[in-house]
Amino acid sequence: MNIDELILDICKRAKSASYELARLPTETKNKALLNMADALEKNVSEILKANEKDVKASKERGVKEALLDRLILNEKRVSKMAQCLREVAALPDPIGEIVRTWTRPNGLIIGQLRVPLGVVAVIYESRPDVTSDASGICLKSGNAVILRGGSDAFNSNMTIGRILSEAAVESGVPEGAIQVVPTTDRKAAIQLMKMRDYVDALIPRGGAGLIRAVIENAKIPVIETGTGNCHIYVEEDADQEQAIKIIINAKCQRPGTCNAAEKVLVHRGIASEFIPKAVDVLRKHGVEVRGCEETRKIVPDVIPATEDDWYTEYLDLIIAFKVVNGLEEAINHINKYGTKHSDAILTSDFNKALRFIRDVDSAAVYWNASTRFTDGNQYGLGAEIGISTQKLHARGPMSVQHLTTIKYFVLGRGHIREL
Amino acid sequence: MNIDELILDICKRAKSASYELARLPTETKNKALLNMADALEKNVSEILKANEKDVKASKERGVKEALLDRLILNEKRVSKMAQCLREVAALPDPIGEIVRTWTRPNGLIIGQLRVPLGVVAVIYESRPDVTSDASGICLKSGNAVILRGGSDAFNSNMTIGRILSEAAVESGVPEGAIQVVPTTDRKAAIQLMKMRDYVDALIPRGGAGLIRAVIENAKIPVIETGTGNCHIYVEEDADQEQAIKIIINAKCQRPGTCNAAEKVLVHRGIASEFIPKAVDVLRKHGVEVRGCEETRKIVPDVIPATEDDWYTEYLDLIIAFKVVNGLEEAINHINKYGTKHSDAILTSDFNKALRFIRDVDSAAVYWNASTRFTDGNQYGLGAEIGISTQKLHARGPMSVQHLTTIKYFVLGRGHIREL
Repeated sequence: MNIDELILDICKRAKSASYELARLPTETKNKALLNMADALEKNVSEILKANEKDVKASKERGVKEALLDRLILNEKRVSKMAQCLREVAALPDPIGEIVRTWTRPNGLIIGQLRVPLGVVAVIYESRPDVTSDASGICLKSGNAVILRGGSDAFNSNMTIGRILSEAAVESGVPEGAIQVVPTTDRKAAIQLMKMRDYVDALIPRGGAGLIRAVIENAKIPVIETGTGNCHIYVEEDADQEQAIKIIINAKCQRPGTCNAAEKVLVHRGIASEFIPKAVDVLRKHGVEVRGCEETRKIVPDVIPATEDDWYTEYLDLIIAFKVVNGLEEAINHINKYGTKHSDAILTSDFNKALRFIRDVDSAAVYWNASTRFTDGNQYGLGAEIGISTQKLHARGPMSVQHLTTIKYFVLGRGHIREL
Repeated sequence: MNIDELILDICKRAKSASYELARLPTETKNKALLNMADALEKNVSEILKANEKDVKASKERGVKEALLDRLILNEKRVSKMAQCLREVAALPDPIGEIVRTWTRPNGLIIGQLRVPLGVVAVIYESRPDVTSDASGICLKSGNAVILRGGSDAFNSNMTIGRILSEAAVESGVPEGAIQVVPTTDRKAAIQLMKMRDYVDALIPRGGAGLIRAVIENAKIPVIETGTGNCHIYVEEDADQEQAIKIIINAKCQRPGTCNAAEKVLVHRGIASEFIPKAVDVLRKHGVEVRGCEETRKIVPDVIPATEDDWYTEYLDLIIAFKVVNGLEEAINHINKYGTKHSDAILTSDFNKALRFIRDVDSAAVYWNASTRFTDGNQYGLGAEIGISTQKLHARGPMSVQHLTTIKYFVLGRGHIREL
């Protein structure tokens, strides 16, 4: 089989499985999820052996420490993957819900039935735990999943995928419901993005480069996720001590995540008072601080920020400050340079907060809280398959219920249309 | 300005208008819609003059009668456009609704706020009433709209668009909220499909060729609409007299629409009894009947259907019959050859109907009713901007509420994330 035939074969098997998955009883899906969790823990040594191969190869290629950390598995991390599957098993099953029914004046009964999307493809980068998280969320929502992970994690993903798929099939899930693309050839990913007749939704998870490649090549509906150039705007009337705590949390708690803050906008009225204090604490946390001209007039040894900086998601211990004239300039700056992910205003004024919430065009808008909360579990939605930064279909953390759609059912008694 | 600059300028103006539109009071939007309706009626002679130019040019190019009918406007049709705007004004405003709020154990308050998509682009073919319907639905839902109609209707669309935009601006709607692309150059449409930074959703309305061009070129999220290769499956136990009435309605009432039936699948057990009666009545209605080998054994002068026929949306007085072994073959045939639009089962058996509803993977599934009902007004959803045949975002008739999204607002009191 060449690459195109391989992808076609995977897609056909996924499509065929999807029809069976759509009508699988909740009990079967939950039992499968629990068996999948057990299988991960039972086969942990096999998973860690495959992962070691990946880590060794990555080290030889000189992959950076921060990226290596995302790739490395250990017993605790495998247990966490298993735990996530158990949590997904405990979530309510969205499939089969009758969302609404109504009767038209002519007696026609119309209803909306919640159904799976069908086949979901996930294209992601180095983290092998996505293989397991995405499999669980897709199975729970009745979708077949095609997983295409990064080449760094190829052996880990193949091993995890095989273990999960075997445990699922043993529990009554159709063969083809969970498949990992068994090649690192980039052509396979490109071909997968074009399989319009078989794949109902494509979810890319990764950096800006991956998202760009998907947008460039995809011929199937995409849910864009992840890139987060998140802002914190500090108003004149903000509680400055609280503001510093929130900025430190949003920047430093996990700087490699998409909901970490990358920019701080400061009202001119408090700039000369607030910025030196904030820069001082950030530097104590090992953060490199960049800034606009005005910031540098206040703290001269701040690195000059270029126009590019305002667009950049650092995913690192770097942050850039900008002095603004007020709320309106802050909102306009965020809407121009942001990625529509998560942005916060720190203010004691309810009206300013409302205006920021209304006018900042982002998936999640915060008042006096850290942007780090944008997360399915933190929101109480359960495990997430990604954070959507687009407006169609789902926005913000995507959970089991976001991998569904509705179909209309219409019940007549010989009804025909008159006009 | 060259084409690329022209499109960029239109997009920038739409984006800028969209921020103002998002916060426009309901009263302003409704007043604008009513003024737009009045303006269409007041300027009907100007619209008809522009339309005459289009019709004349189309006739000279030898455009077919059926297509000409979609292009031609008259006083009654302009009044119908105005009436549609008035109906949209009367619909509830979805924007600003707080869909849900909840409080997390840490005291963080999380909510979902309904907001417009932002900028919606509509690319469509010959019907000039789409210019007015889409403008109304987009304005009501707080979206800026960029309209790119077919070259056949260029003068009509430009005139209608200018009248609507002027009436809207006079009523307090920002300039740039309603724009018609002022060129028939195909490059303009292709460029519009790539304006990812400005356009939030692209809705193509038209035939399979248009949809294909959009899927091939679009770099922005698309809601696919329209193509309808709709099926009616007649079970062994169907009420045959009722079945014939439904088939005639679904095929003949308006054969050029996407919810018209194109295929009839008949259970083998009643084929020799039912097909001759159905073919007879269809022919009396001027329908050309095609059929599979078995159909032709029963009614020999039926035109042989090719493999291509099973995939084809005729949009004409043509229908094809196929004899099947039963429910399972019918479902598999529809899922393989259909376009996921509207499909019906005619049966007296509740269990068969349920199985069909569950397993046919289409936007709308009917039991003992005509597929012609798939329509926003028929469903009681109000005016529609198209019928989505994809699963992401919206499925089936798309109305005002489908041109919205939610944003999360998160209210804290200095909350930071611990883990």
